[in-house]
Amino acid sequence: MKILVQIDFPYSGSFGAEMAAAFTPLAESIAQERGLIWKMWTENSETNEAGGIYLFEDKSSAETYLKMHTARLESFGVRDIRAKFFTLNEPLSHITRAPV
Amino acid sequence: MKILVQIDFPYSGSFGAEMAAAFTPLAESIAQERGLIWKMWTENSETNEAGGIYLFEDKSSAETYLKMHTARLESFGVRDIRAKFFTLNEPLSHITRAPV
Repeated sequence: MKILVQIDFPYSGSFGAEMAAAFTPLAESIAQERGLIWKMWTENSETNEAGGIYLFEDKSSAETYLKMHTARLESFGVRDIRAKFFTLNEPLSHITRAPV
Repeated sequence: MKILVQIDFPYSGSFGAEMAAAFTPLAESIAQERGLIWKMWTENSETNEAGGIYLFEDKSSAETYLKMHTARLESFGVRDIRAKFFTLNEPLSHITRAPV
């Protein structure tokens, strides 16, 4: 079953184009992760937060990724990481045009 | 600028097909909301949580919807609603195949 992972955390780095330039190699690496269908990169320069919405093929891939990614974020100095796993309600998501 | 709205809350109702049946009229209503591009319906029957990931055309539409939807959820008895607004980092999201 596909798993949606929702992650957010306080973030004091760069945003927008500058963030994109800084994290392009990381994004290219994440794109290769086993079981990853896609990741949306989220940011809010007003509240100083960032995160991601991910869709994985299965729970095992999501758990393996989250463990690795949490350790990586902490190595960058990120704290207070909030991560939640969900499944998608596909009939309702279909009605509201979700691209899933 | 497009706004991603991330909402989650404790939820003790039905999940899966039963939830889909119960909320189909609500989903049909949400699909008509001004400025809504899509909504993904999220659920977790193990942690008793639910929520949604939304994409809106602009911040004004997102704010109007959130105010209305929060009041509606509270009328259903939902408490501890957590809502966050983000923009998408589109270059990074493109690299990781996000459907945005």
